[in-house]
Amino acid sequence: MTIVDMADATQGLDEGIKALAHPVRRAILAKLREPERYFAEQAQPLSLGVCAGQIEQSCPLSQSSISAHLAALQAAGLINGRRVGPYVFYKRDDLAIERLLALLRASLDRPECAPEPEKSS
Amino acid sequence: MTIVDMADATQGLDEGIKALAHPVRRAILAKLREPERYFAEQAQPLSLGVCAGQIEQSCPLSQSSISAHLAALQAAGLINGRRVGPYVFYKRDDLAIERLLALLRASLDRPECAPEPEKSS
Repeated sequence: MTIVDMADATQGLDEGIKALAHPVRRAILAKLREPERYFAEQAQPLSLGVCAGQIEQSCPLSQSSISAHLAALQAAGLINGRRVGPYVFYKRDDLAIERLLALLRASLDRPECAPEPEKSS
Repeated sequence: MTIVDMADATQGLDEGIKALAHPVRRAILAKLREPERYFAEQAQPLSLGVCAGQIEQSCPLSQSSISAHLAALQAAGLINGRRVGPYVFYKRDDLAIERLLALLRASLDRPECAPEPEKSS
């Protein structure tokens, strides 16, 4: 792993962890783990994913807040969105989540030289 | 668990996760896991913990930056500081870290009603 790869992995880990640091984003991920349980009333097949509108209805927050949370989860690679006509359907990326949790644990078990600015004092 | 307890646990989880979302803080935790390996040159017994000055020397950042990171880790309950004369010695709280990682995983596996403001639109 080169220094650049290591910096990329570190930054991805930071972004992923930050994405998990909000209860609503964790709740969205948890619900997307069991779409049949939490989004059974969706008109479209759940094999497409869960429609953004369904996720919004399941949360006690405004549409714009939920949109921002979904965007943050997607930017961190923890969910994948797919546009079908006027709708966007989301699926949880289980592999990415497992990889993130494994990386987090590994980083707490062995020090990594964080690519930081030089000592300033 | 009451609503208040649940809110406290959620807030503790958020704060703990945020504390882990920085590579320097993760590196400090990882080094404190093996004091004999990373801080063998400390004059005082490592059974006291690792002196703040030793941690500062091991990181390519200013003293004030490391102090702030140590304060964040302590506020999140992931390390414990103990003052002995002019020095502060830190130990990693393994139990707290394991508890945090377990809570994080649980929160991704089952939705929790996050105590959020009411739907505003």
